[in-house]
Amino acid sequence: MPAALTLAEIASRLGGRVVGTPETLIRQVGSLEHAGPDQITFFSRLRHKNKLAATHAAAVILAESAQDLTSIPRIVCENPYAYFARVSQLFNPVSAPEPGRHPAAVVANSAKVAATARVDAGAIVEDGATIGERVWVGAGCYVGRDSWIGEDGRLYPSVVVYGGCRIGARAVIHSGAVIGADGFGIAQDAGQWIKIPQIGGVVIGDDVEIGANSTIDRGAIDDTVLEDGVKLDNQVQIGHNVRVGAHTAIAGCAGVAGSAIIGRHCSIGGAAVILGHLELVDHVNVSAGTLISRSILEPGTYTGVFPFDANASWTRNAVWLRHLSKLSDRVRRLEKLLGRKGKNG
Amino acid sequence: MPAALTLAEIASRLGGRVVGTPETLIRQVGSLEHAGPDQITFFSRLRHKNKLAATHAAAVILAESAQDLTSIPRIVCENPYAYFARVSQLFNPVSAPEPGRHPAAVVANSAKVAATARVDAGAIVEDGATIGERVWVGAGCYVGRDSWIGEDGRLYPSVVVYGGCRIGARAVIHSGAVIGADGFGIAQDAGQWIKIPQIGGVVIGDDVEIGANSTIDRGAIDDTVLEDGVKLDNQVQIGHNVRVGAHTAIAGCAGVAGSAIIGRHCSIGGAAVILGHLELVDHVNVSAGTLISRSILEPGTYTGVFPFDANASWTRNAVWLRHLSKLSDRVRRLEKLLGRKGKNG
Amino acid sequence: MPAALTLAEIASRLGGRVVGTPETLIRQVGSLEHAGPDQITFFSRLRHKNKLAATHAAAVILAESAQDLTSIPRIVCENPYAYFARVSQLFNPVSAPEPGRHPAAVVANSAKVAATARVDAGAIVEDGATIGERVWVGAGCYVGRDSWIGEDGRLYPSVVVYGGCRIGARAVIHSGAVIGADGFGIAQDAGQWIKIPQIGGVVIGDDVEIGANSTIDRGAIDDTVLEDGVKLDNQVQIGHNVRVGAHTAIAGCAGVAGSAIIGRHCSIGGAAVILGHLELVDHVNVSAGTLISRSILEPGTYTGVFPFDANASWTRNAVWLRHLSKLSDRVRRLEKLLGRKGKNG
Repeated sequence: MPAALTLAEIASRLGGRVVGTPETLIRQVGSLEHAGPDQITFFSRLRHKNKLAATHAAAVILAESAQDLTSIPRIVCENPYAYFARVSQLFNPVSAPEPGRHPAAVVANSAKVAATARVDAGAIVEDGATIGERVWVGAGCYVGRDSWIGEDGRLYPSVVVYGGCRIGARAVIHSGAVIGADGFGIAQDAGQWIKIPQIGGVVIGDDVEIGANSTIDRGAIDDTVLEDGVKLDNQVQIGHNVRVGAHTAIAGCAGVAGSAIIGRHCSIGGAAVILGHLELVDHVNVSAGTLISRSILEPGTYTGVFPFDANASWTRNAVWLRHLSKLSDRVRRLEKLLGRKGKNG
Repeated sequence: MPAALTLAEIASRLGGRVVGTPETLIRQVGSLEHAGPDQITFFSRLRHKNKLAATHAAAVILAESAQDLTSIPRIVCENPYAYFARVSQLFNPVSAPEPGRHPAAVVANSAKVAATARVDAGAIVEDGATIGERVWVGAGCYVGRDSWIGEDGRLYPSVVVYGGCRIGARAVIHSGAVIGADGFGIAQDAGQWIKIPQIGGVVIGDDVEIGANSTIDRGAIDDTVLEDGVKLDNQVQIGHNVRVGAHTAIAGCAGVAGSAIIGRHCSIGGAAVILGHLELVDHVNVSAGTLISRSILEPGTYTGVFPFDANASWTRNAVWLRHLSKLSDRVRRLEKLLGRKGKNG
Repeated sequence: MPAALTLAEIASRLGGRVVGTPETLIRQVGSLEHAGPDQITFFSRLRHKNKLAATHAAAVILAESAQDLTSIPRIVCENPYAYFARVSQLFNPVSAPEPGRHPAAVVANSAKVAATARVDAGAIVEDGATIGERVWVGAGCYVGRDSWIGEDGRLYPSVVVYGGCRIGARAVIHSGAVIGADGFGIAQDAGQWIKIPQIGGVVIGDDVEIGANSTIDRGAIDDTVLEDGVKLDNQVQIGHNVRVGAHTAIAGCAGVAGSAIIGRHCSIGGAAVILGHLELVDHVNVSAGTLISRSILEPGTYTGVFPFDANASWTRNAVWLRHLSKLSDRVRRLEKLLGRKGKNG
């Protein structure tokens, strides 16, 4: 259980300005709707004003512009959501795993497992693999030959890391993620597919999080690379030879095809698709559900989604997409006609 | 092997009206194309009329409107597909697993495993977990600390349930499903992402089925909830804090982003995407491939898909999407011009 | 380590014409950018001309049309990419696994495991299953009752094959793939879903590759079928009763809904969706991100993607999609008006 902290203590650790009773005691974070009398919540969406008014939280984190929307004790700060993240980390610290190797784990003799690491039941660590200090290898995980898990990494149960992959410090990898499977490298020849051996590896920087059932393919020849601070949600697919720049976040179900280069500080929305052999510069935001089919050389937000509609209305309108080009021709013809008429009329 | 039943016996158990020889003996269900002389099939799509005419099945389940399309023995009923489902359940009953704990399973001392439950090789049940009566925990499954699997649940091999999740009775969870991984909760601060501890759980009602490699994230603060009778296909992603209403079905590869609220009796098509913080009322159908970007407050069917076309034609037309607004302006200008002309002409 | 080969030796094995020093010694393949002085690379995209000029590779594989773009030793051939695939296979051969059964594997007594096969730690092979000659069953894999893995198959760690599935020779199945889970067969009855037992199997031909975390459902009644030479990338979903024709390739995150029939030699792009009960003839290419909503009876390339745009521009244009039908009506009215005018004017 995390210790209790007063608002004043929180502010002295994390900054911000306390408004109201600084001795208010906090034991946990909570949501606007369900926070109890020893919990702190946060407010960042104006449309939740009513929820703020009704909250039973002991205190709330909010921006200066919102500070008068409530009279409960509060911490005023610049970025309430980030502040809330830090407060939640205070009350919910990640503890280092209890070191040890479960008797039902299978660790190769030549694997180097730090004395402070933990390897759970059913986990398998192959020859030459390195498991860093305080790493937790969850139940049923697989760490392939010569792979490397940096210090303080957490592999939840059933993560698979193929051989020859390198994962930096403080990684968080969720269950079912597969790192280092073969890229989809096949060459067509006389109607059949010939497999191209995938001899590159995967190199993952520090502070990377990878969601459940995401897949990151090894490189065809050179490595697939995720730079520091990259965050991937669940069921994200990263093809071979891709490079994802530092501090880029990719939401669930998105896919990045082979050899795409994504810049730093990008955000890729859920179920978005980045085609292969493209380049996205830094600070590009791709909206959810958008397919990126050519390189993006200017920072900004890019979208390509069919706006949904009642089905009957969609049916009525969508059929015209097949005739857009002709429709445009017809307008041009009318303009010409009318232009002439305009002159002559 | 299921026992043989006559058509009369089937109808006496499940209702419906037998037309033709009631003594016809049935041992199994079959498809229109491949059913053999002791199998019963069903007919529900008129475009399969030719297949019905050619079937070698012993009998067929069909609606009153179709009863004269064949002369083989048949059961006439209101909902042939549902009737077929029940007949197939008769011939293919799910049997309770043989109780026991494989010596290669790892069950924590403080876990409560019902005497009638079965835990297969390589499965891991952590401290404080509860495995209900007649539950089958398949090979290599993981049930985390304090999680709870209700009676008659079936976890196929390699399912992962993180700690602190509660799954109701009669769940069917397919291989590779991951329940309770962290939601994608990250806050941006000075160009870096700060992780928000995901301290909520997952609460799943009774009679829920979850497809292979689907992922259901734990809540950020409160719980993620799937109500009774929800059915998820494969590779479905459910974000943190989502609530899916009772008897809603979600087809393969669909994704629901964080904090979305989906009503009861909805159906979400394959590869559809529901963005976060939205609300869909009861009885909403979302077509396959559709992205829902705002709340839906009226029941009905909603679609937003780009109709596919031959590539050359698509290329010709799609380019005009970038000029739709201008095209519309041009039409308005023509109307204005012509309106004036109309008056003057 | 693969032996070194001269260009002349490579050409004598694989064909092609050597230009430059035939004694050039090659030890491995490399990329244009990073190949070292004992590596051979390939050139197939004209836009990489500068990379070709700057390469440090010992030799390059290219087409006749490109042979004068460099002066380094080279092999000229018709299909450089396929040639490269074969060269890479020469230097990176797949070796048969060292036979054996890890003591931490669990193999049922009635399973037939070839003496030349390898079953790794934590793998489980159920009753009646057959593991063919030289098959590698990776750590933590599950092979269900009566399933059959053909000779020279490779199951990477954590593959799940349910019971009653048959996989042909030389399969390559990547981690997290799930073969034979229940299809999404549910019938609606009075607002609830009734499960239809999925009693078909999965039949997979020879030389099939299945990517990480892909899922292939068992048939509802008859089998789901992947013919010879089919290649699936990661996170592909194949619904029940689907048939995928020989030598068809399906890229990452694509989904094929139940009972769809896909022809031979098709290619399905990443994140594409094929709805259920459709038929695609041979030699159909579906572009990435495209949803196929009716059968395709002519070979060719088909596309249906919303072209992405800067968000502001997309917003401006997309709104008109809801009014396309009316816009078209307005143009028709103008034409009528103007036609009359044309006649009268």
